[in-house]
Amino acid sequence: MNADVRVGVLASGRGSNFAALVAAAAQGRLGARIVCLITDNPSAPVVATAEAAGVPVVVVDPGTRHGRLGTEAEQRIVDALRAHGVHLVCLAGFMRIVGPVLLAAFPGAILNVHPSLLPSFPGLDAQRQAFEHGVQVTGCTVHFVDAGIDSGPIVMQQPVQVHDDDTLEALTARILAAEHRAFPAAVRQWAEGRLRIHGRRVARLEATTVSRHPGAGHPVHGEA
Amino acid sequence: MNADVRVGVLASGRGSNFAALVAAAAQGRLGARIVCLITDNPSAPVVATAEAAGVPVVVVDPGTRHGRLGTEAEQRIVDALRAHGVHLVCLAGFMRIVGPVLLAAFPGAILNVHPSLLPSFPGLDAQRQAFEHGVQVTGCTVHFVDAGIDSGPIVMQQPVQVHDDDTLEALTARILAAEHRAFPAAVRQWAEGRLRIHGRRVARLEATTVSRHPGAGHPVHGEA
Repeated sequence: MNADVRVGVLASGRGSNFAALVAAAAQGRLGARIVCLITDNPSAPVVATAEAAGVPVVVVDPGTRHGRLGTEAEQRIVDALRAHGVHLVCLAGFMRIVGPVLLAAFPGAILNVHPSLLPSFPGLDAQRQAFEHGVQVTGCTVHFVDAGIDSGPIVMQQPVQVHDDDTLEALTARILAAEHRAFPAAVRQWAEGRLRIHGRRVARLEATTVSRHPGAGHPVHGEA
Repeated sequence: MNADVRVGVLASGRGSNFAALVAAAAQGRLGARIVCLITDNPSAPVVATAEAAGVPVVVVDPGTRHGRLGTEAEQRIVDALRAHGVHLVCLAGFMRIVGPVLLAAFPGAILNVHPSLLPSFPGLDAQRQAFEHGVQVTGCTVHFVDAGIDSGPIVMQQPVQVHDDDTLEALTARILAAEHRAFPAAVRQWAEGRLRIHGRRVARLEATTVSRHPGAGHPVHGEA
């Protein structure tokens, strides 16, 4: 395990994906350690989770633009991530759209988890979108973050079956369980330096062929 | 098995899904029998497959509109389906968009199989769309046909994993194998009268609770 890869998490809510990342790190399944939580919401339950886990918390005023981050807020987040020596940024239920300042500061090093099989059902309330559309298979997606909404190259997807007698609540819970498996696994692949981006496609090197050292996680962009 | 449910298939090409339906019927897995093949392409390989299986073939000139059926062609197809006493219409690689005449003649009784997990990648070349988008999970969808393109209520979906070292050809073959499993299974559920449409969602009755008789397959539209 390469515990020298340092992960910063951005979250706004309950923080169950943050907790899944912390648990994976504690069990040696993450290949990295969680060095800070940054939130736009000081009253979010994730703050207490981080404090209980001994992870430093940084609260950043998101600025005025609803759904987006102001440029100053983005710069304060970048400053906080750099102050904690972060290599990889994980969005775990972060309810703001990441802008150009953060994207430019961490190229190829921002991952998000989304509760659908993208490109189906991007945006808010993806589980409900899928449920109401009547799909039989939905799931979750871990992807690199780009300037679009839930549009970056896909690292990992896990399918989740929808049952005829499902409820939205039960389906959401099963998707969340899939997120808790997929996100730590994807972070580990990044931390082990195994991810290669070719155009829109992401491929993995064999685990045994990669030398592990700090910064090894930065994916190499191949030819499209 | 209710072999009194009569299925007409529309196909334009190779006909491997037609062959899968014929094989399922021969093995008693379809709950229905295939009573005619209708094609817009007299030189399609599916014609020889039908002739070899002893299924009557009707060739219909599609009319002039590329990608669509002319109204006269639609009416000739409806006439042929009625002449063969068809209850359920299956589109198996039929390369024309079904219009209002056919839709009105077989309400809730036209199924299509599509090589993606809809609503991702509707339209042509869905396997390539998914491959080039870089998804890790794609699959196939059997759905009721409505006036949109690959947009009707979903009856059945099967996920197919995309491998890092996949080729489009290998992926397409695995999706096709999933289609060959899903389409006969969906037809059987229709033929057994088990499908109920609620708005966009399709649910199944338990197999044991349904009485089977000709026409039982017609799904009941419930409240949305």
